[in-house]
Amino acid sequence: MIALNATHDPARRSWLASANTPGADFPIQNLPLGMFSLQSEADAAAPRPAVAIGDQVVDLRALDAAGLFSGDAARAVRAVAPSDLGLNAMMALGNQPASALRARLSELLREGGDSGLRERAGTLLHSQADVRMHLPCRIGDYTDFLTSYPHTERHGRFKGLADPVTPVFHSLPVAYHGRASSIRVSGTPVRRPNGQWKAADGSIQFGAVEAMDLELELAALVGAGTRLAEPVPLDQAGEHIFGYVLLNDWSAKSVQWWEQMLGPFLGKSFMSSISPWVVTAEALAPFAMRAPARRPEAPPLLPYLHSAQDRERGGLDIALEAWLSTAAMRETGSGPVRLAATHLSNLTWTFGQMLTHHCSNGCDLHPGDLMGSGTVSGERDDERACLTEIASAGKEPLHLPNGEERRWLQDGDEVTLRARAGGEGRVAIGFGPCAGRILPALPYPLPKA
Amino acid sequence: MIALNATHDPARRSWLASANTPGADFPIQNLPLGMFSLQSEADAAAPRPAVAIGDQVVDLRALDAAGLFSGDAARAVRAVAPSDLGLNAMMALGNQPASALRARLSELLREGGDSGLRERAGTLLHSQADVRMHLPCRIGDYTDFLTSYPHTERHGRFKGLADPVTPVFHSLPVAYHGRASSIRVSGTPVRRPNGQWKAADGSIQFGAVEAMDLELELAALVGAGTRLAEPVPLDQAGEHIFGYVLLNDWSAKSVQWWEQMLGPFLGKSFMSSISPWVVTAEALAPFAMRAPARRPEAPPLLPYLHSAQDRERGGLDIALEAWLSTAAMRETGSGPVRLAATHLSNLTWTFGQMLTHHCSNGCDLHPGDLMGSGTVSGERDDERACLTEIASAGKEPLHLPNGEERRWLQDGDEVTLRARAGGEGRVAIGFGPCAGRILPALPYPLPKA
Repeated sequence: MIALNATHDPARRSWLASANTPGADFPIQNLPLGMFSLQSEADAAAPRPAVAIGDQVVDLRALDAAGLFSGDAARAVRAVAPSDLGLNAMMALGNQPASALRARLSELLREGGDSGLRERAGTLLHSQADVRMHLPCRIGDYTDFLTSYPHTERHGRFKGLADPVTPVFHSLPVAYHGRASSIRVSGTPVRRPNGQWKAADGSIQFGAVEAMDLELELAALVGAGTRLAEPVPLDQAGEHIFGYVLLNDWSAKSVQWWEQMLGPFLGKSFMSSISPWVVTAEALAPFAMRAPARRPEAPPLLPYLHSAQDRERGGLDIALEAWLSTAAMRETGSGPVRLAATHLSNLTWTFGQMLTHHCSNGCDLHPGDLMGSGTVSGERDDERACLTEIASAGKEPLHLPNGEERRWLQDGDEVTLRARAGGEGRVAIGFGPCAGRILPALPYPLPKA
Repeated sequence: MIALNATHDPARRSWLASANTPGADFPIQNLPLGMFSLQSEADAAAPRPAVAIGDQVVDLRALDAAGLFSGDAARAVRAVAPSDLGLNAMMALGNQPASALRARLSELLREGGDSGLRERAGTLLHSQADVRMHLPCRIGDYTDFLTSYPHTERHGRFKGLADPVTPVFHSLPVAYHGRASSIRVSGTPVRRPNGQWKAADGSIQFGAVEAMDLELELAALVGAGTRLAEPVPLDQAGEHIFGYVLLNDWSAKSVQWWEQMLGPFLGKSFMSSISPWVVTAEALAPFAMRAPARRPEAPPLLPYLHSAQDRERGGLDIALEAWLSTAAMRETGSGPVRLAATHLSNLTWTFGQMLTHHCSNGCDLHPGDLMGSGTVSGERDDERACLTEIASAGKEPLHLPNGEERRWLQDGDEVTLRARAGGEGRVAIGFGPCAGRILPALPYPLPKA
């Protein structure tokens, strides 16, 4: 469990005005980590580590070169070699060096703190408008969980299952291995895939997939790795979670439903999007909350998935939203429409339980591995966190304010995910956007006859 | 399609006698690639690229330092940097540089060829008994297919399914994403996992898993990568397959059957084993054969999964075996028992079809990605390529010649997979062993109360 410290002080303000704007995603209490390069640089410019504050990006390697870091803070920054494409080596050190870095940055960025950075802000800070964000780390393995009861129940009903939530859902955090290679950073266009599905008339089709969906998820990134054959007790799971990002688990639903024999494969693997800024587990410590209550029909937790600490502090007070902007909306200058507003407390399992279950069989987790929560749907209609639920698997189209309707995502549609921890009178911290726009499918290349 | 050349000449012999022994896995026609270090070195010694010949290992970097390589052969070897842990950078170049390397090595190792290596064999070659083999490459993503009809049918029957092979099996190569982090090289002990399962009385249990199984598979390694959103036509799939290894997809069957909602997860992810030597696609070119005939009930292939070339030459003439040595057998000095003898032609889909289907939705494949065939079971009883099939899911124990019986693998059991292409009067090439011994489960660490 992470103790609160001065970096969490809600009264702390930055000398950078944009960090103090009410509702800003990146106040001084956040300081998320990412990898950036400058828009003005060549496409192939190596990304380097950074922290976001207000509307600015702090170049950590430049701060180190300017002599502003020492001790563990320097160790955290220097772990990332110039040839590294991600923060993995910093994450591998566990949460302590990153915590020292955070403490030092908070001191350099706060009103009345060390003025070393403020004096050189012109060369050490960049406007977020001038940078290109990259994936924050190399993702070796990607696991996606299924932990929302309402999401599972609605999907089961669409498939006509008599008992839409099978008993195993209550006994363990169900998951599948996802495809790591096709994860891209927010902003990367999403090419509509070609795929195979079973049509309503029973025929098997192949072509551009109509049934395109978003899935609104939060995802944990592994920091310190675990070793093969060495499970992690639940109360130590937090030591291996470095931070969190937003995840859009884009789905080709017709493909997913037809290929389903061993779980999702091509229905998901064409691309997944994550937000570029890793909100650290430490930054989220003030927003710990009780784990959601178990449902009445759920059996008692098995001992390896139960601890008093996890019950008391395993949840996170994070609200999540999905927004849709269609091509027609952008042409007419009308703003995006909110598709969903949900909360992480809709999940049946905590991230600690997910991690502990994941390595309960000895499976090793590596720095940078990604664990998605599954679609964060709740019981309420506005908490349906994917279009399949909102439009009842294509049967009841969503009517948009401008007269358009959507059964599935169309070409040109842009989906933006957002999330915030806290708020309502308290300091809140945000995740920044996770966005992607659908491009038309390409013609499928066939062998020459 | 790979053309035959002088390196395939069945009459070619090596000046190294052990390479000419009938039945040797590594004659001069094979020349598989791997990563080795010396037993005499520290555990942390960096692995470096090698080729196997007879009972020897050829140190490729040492040959390069001795001036024995130029052009593309040198380029292939030098692609692998001293800090690299695998052959990925060589594989990324595609099959042509590796082919040039193979041609040069064949010339250096053949009777009557270039004598530059023979004269310095004492320093450039090592006995296989003196080396430690490592994973041949970093495996970014691991995909496991399900392509044996008999395997699928028997498993479906054990589960009580009325229609054990669902129609999708015939329409596309079914697959799931596997866990890449827990793949280990042959020889690594296999720790029996703890896990959760549903007992016969309906209760949910957690503890050391009894139902341990092997699964005999062949797996392709991706060479030249593919790009996001760019599918690969079937006739070009071979350009992205660098070579093949044996794969033991160790399974905790009771866990797999209970957790199944989104496909295999902890039932498989505790560890998978692969053989260390990559038998190149080029070395296997002489063993290309017709793809297996489609079953009568299968619909016509969709165009993206059909080509005349794949039908004519997409299969591989590879025989595979699994062997069991129990602790009792080793104590009494009796040799291992053969559990299964099967053939790759038992698979419904070709590796070309698997790769083309995998990226038909735009999913990008990276150098070193692993694609398992699924358990290579055939119709005959001796072709059942896992213990679940052999012992009817624990109901009909296998009786071993020494009086032991097995429903599942026991602690101390060692399983060795082997495979050979060709044979019966023709030159044959082998894969070397893929072995692993089961260790007892460790007590599960629980949170302190």
